Amino acid sequence: MTGVILKHGSDGMTATTKQGRADKGGAGAERRSRGRPPLRSDEETRALIYEAARSEFAASGFAATSIDDVARRAGISTKTLYRLVPSKQALFEGMVVDKMDRFASGVRLRACDGSNIKAALREACLACAELILDGEVIALQRLILADSDKFPDIAETFYKNAMRRTVSTLANWLRTQQGRGLIRLREIDPETAAGMLLGMLILEPQRAVIFGRQAPPDRAELERRSEACATLFLEGCAARP
Amino acid sequence: MTGVILKHGSDGMTATTKQGRADKGGAGAERRSRGRPPLRSDEETRALIYEAARSEFAASGFAATSIDDVARRAGISTKTLYRLVPSKQALFEGMVVDKMDRFASGVRLRACDGSNIKAALREACLACAELILDGEVIALQRLILADSDKFPDIAETFYKNAMRRTVSTLANWLRTQQGRGLIRLREIDPETAAGMLLGMLILEPQRAVIFGRQAPPDRAELERRSEACATLFLEGCAARP
Repeated sequence: MTGVILKHGSDGMTATTKQGRADKGGAGAERRSRGRPPLRSDEETRALIYEAARSEFAASGFAATSIDDVARRAGISTKTLYRLVPSKQALFEGMVVDKMDRFASGVRLRACDGSNIKAALREACLACAELILDGEVIALQRLILADSDKFPDIAETFYKNAMRRTVSTLANWLRTQQGRGLIRLREIDPETAAGMLLGMLILEPQRAVIFGRQAPPDRAELERRSEACATLFLEGCAARP
Repeated sequence: MTGVILKHGSDGMTATTKQGRADKGGAGAERRSRGRPPLRSDEETRALIYEAARSEFAASGFAATSIDDVARRAGISTKTLYRLVPSKQALFEGMVVDKMDRFASGVRLRACDGSNIKAALREACLACAELILDGEVIALQRLILADSDKFPDIAETFYKNAMRRTVSTLANWLRTQQGRGLIRLREIDPETAAGMLLGMLILEPQRAVIFGRQAPPDRAELERRSEACATLFLEGCAARP
């Protein structure tokens, strides 16, 4: 039964895929399985916790989210959650770092091969756009900001571990392409250029959602925008004789 | 006494320049001058009101700012304020539109002359950066967002009258340059290109202030960034054989 986890919910035996949302059995589920060999590795449980945390934080913000809610949504006991993640702050940071780790390896995998620089840059842009212009991530960002007077550490964690890390992932990518002789940044350092590229890509769609209350862009729109950004960033728009 | 306004404060006669903050005489100041010819035009009074509103909104947010506080800071009576501006919502909108009117004519004046496209674009970028990366404007934006659940109209007013208008001002500028044959946007329409240019310029410095709690960039940094943006936007960074 690869990819399927059997767990005991308060309503009896329930099968759920690894990616699927676990049932709402909560604490009862784990108490009953005490003494049996664990059905899920800590790594798999952590993944469930981070997925649940992302949804809870995006729906309610940092301040209003409780560890109990996250445990309930993840379908595990609060005790198990605390064994793996010691505090709400650590939960937030772990969730962000986990997501960004997957993003960074995705960018490396998807965009660093081949010598077609425009196609490669379009893929790198698309990976960023999918990460940042996701409706849940935008909602999360808005709520972090709303809470940032009370929880400045959370805003700074998000800034350092998500925002700056997206830029440094892109900067490394640009550095690689520069090393291969495919781009030439002249006086602009790769870190600054990466921040500018990201701004081209996300500023307008992000604020259209946050301030203009528009729907997040769909997949086709993300693809069009990534293509347009890659072209403009590489070729510029000065008329050439 | 050109450029200087004489007004009666509760502490007696006070001289203040048009740009300077008026004294704190408030309502008393105007009651005493009743019957005399007005010392200030409505237009001048409105300018004082908008300046005071900007400081109050940036310091306290929309929800917590009262019309009384704005009138007191502007050194006029609440009655005079209500005669010129009928509500807090109208005050917010008027303040934004006033600031943007001055910005739009500044961009037209500063950046549309001459055939040195890079110097002209650097000036247009600098005008945008000075407007948007101003510490008070960033603070205002953060507070609008924090209040946006309770006051969605305010976020939308800001989006439509400030954010979108900056983009359309830049888009018009790009259209002019395109008409002159100085730039060539190919498949990207000027509105989208303008949004991308603005994103290059402001995303990173803005979120460094809002999330990373860094100081707003100083004038020298704005100039460096405007120069780098203009170069990258015009020339791109693809290596050319």
